[in-house]
Amino acid sequence: MTQNIYDSPDFFAGYSQLPRSVEGLAGAPEWPALRALLPNMTGQKVVDLGCGYGWFARWAIEQGAQNVLGLDVSKKMLERAASDGEDARITYQLADLELLQLPSAAFTLAYSSLAFHYIADLGKLLRTIRDALAPGGKLVFSIEHPIFMASLRPDWIIDEQGRKSWPVDNYQIEGPRSTNWLSEGVIKQHRTLGTLLNLLIESGFTLNHINEWGPSPQDLSDRPALADEVHRPRMLIVAATR
Amino acid sequence: MTQNIYDSPDFFAGYSQLPRSVEGLAGAPEWPALRALLPNMTGQKVVDLGCGYGWFARWAIEQGAQNVLGLDVSKKMLERAASDGEDARITYQLADLELLQLPSAAFTLAYSSLAFHYIADLGKLLRTIRDALAPGGKLVFSIEHPIFMASLRPDWIIDEQGRKSWPVDNYQIEGPRSTNWLSEGVIKQHRTLGTLLNLLIESGFTLNHINEWGPSPQDLSDRPALADEVHRPRMLIVAATR
Repeated sequence: MTQNIYDSPDFFAGYSQLPRSVEGLAGAPEWPALRALLPNMTGQKVVDLGCGYGWFARWAIEQGAQNVLGLDVSKKMLERAASDGEDARITYQLADLELLQLPSAAFTLAYSSLAFHYIADLGKLLRTIRDALAPGGKLVFSIEHPIFMASLRPDWIIDEQGRKSWPVDNYQIEGPRSTNWLSEGVIKQHRTLGTLLNLLIESGFTLNHINEWGPSPQDLSDRPALADEVHRPRMLIVAATR
Repeated sequence: MTQNIYDSPDFFAGYSQLPRSVEGLAGAPEWPALRALLPNMTGQKVVDLGCGYGWFARWAIEQGAQNVLGLDVSKKMLERAASDGEDARITYQLADLELLQLPSAAFTLAYSSLAFHYIADLGKLLRTIRDALAPGGKLVFSIEHPIFMASLRPDWIIDEQGRKSWPVDNYQIEGPRSTNWLSEGVIKQHRTLGTLLNLLIESGFTLNHINEWGPSPQDLSDRPALADEVHRPRMLIVAATR
């Protein structure tokens, strides 16, 4: 059972103030990199794992997707997603991704934004996704980067000259990491990047592209607060084919 | 033109004292992980890019490989390799991997141990390797991990309680890194892990396995000095198929 931190009042209050919650896809600096890995959306049958407020589901339909199944563990987020307008082509469904069952070969695109790092048995979920994709179907997802998640003391280290380093420790020791982000005791699952990619390969996916997201010069100009992100890989974005 | 640090007297003197130089493959803690990704060696036609003292070439022949072409930029290392015994099935050849030309579809296995991080135009080399492999041929290599190489201040940071963190900074800024290892001003080429894997994919390889090497419990028992390596990914080992 995944920890459902999103429905705790503190976390939800904080999360709903983030740029990505207020502005949607445009508020997520990694969105252009994710979008670049998506196939032409026309006619796609999409499953969105961790759909949150439904920003991606609505975008996918605008871009010509045939239908979207949006899954999330958070009742509050799904309620807000539904309140943003009914569309017969979008179905929102409460789901624990750890226990997910999906119809066989029913989708052409599986999408997930920043949800997989909460999943303890990711191999099981990836096999479920593979079986739910038609042959040739795509999986495109983002996840917190293992280098961002590994440390037990995840804070910038600043030297006498003010230069920042991101700490890496306990990288080879996989398992839960408890962090305080918007709320105390948020549990994420650390896996090495190698383990993550091997789980994809062993689940029957062919890797097409791996992006360790960092800010572009344009990003740095638009959002100076991202300057530190040149120093570390903050997120990982992967495109793979069944 | 690759910097040929291996032929500088200081470096060569230091390198020749390393356990992996004295003991061969058994002196390299990552060897079991590399070996696990190699195909059955019987009948393989092997090119070894950065063959050094020829330890792998001799092992490959012992394991039944048909022949091995060992390439290295270091004349001193090739001389020592040749002095360890003639074998008609092994050919050693001086080569700058940046300028390498190989016959088309002539090999079934390309192997490289800790050489690719010296290569500036790795995309070009990978295309050369792909063309030199017969269809279905394998590429198995190790490289210094980008997280090990990225920092401009690559030294353990130790906090008041004696806990170690490996620093990551300037990760997104690719290009040369000058380090002092055995000799001053050793130049390595930093690429993100994403860039490295995408170069493989774009060169026509299918990724089979990615190992971010760390010590096993047995390694830690045999070599207590490896204890710090649980904190960081020290090397990357990749298996791919043409």
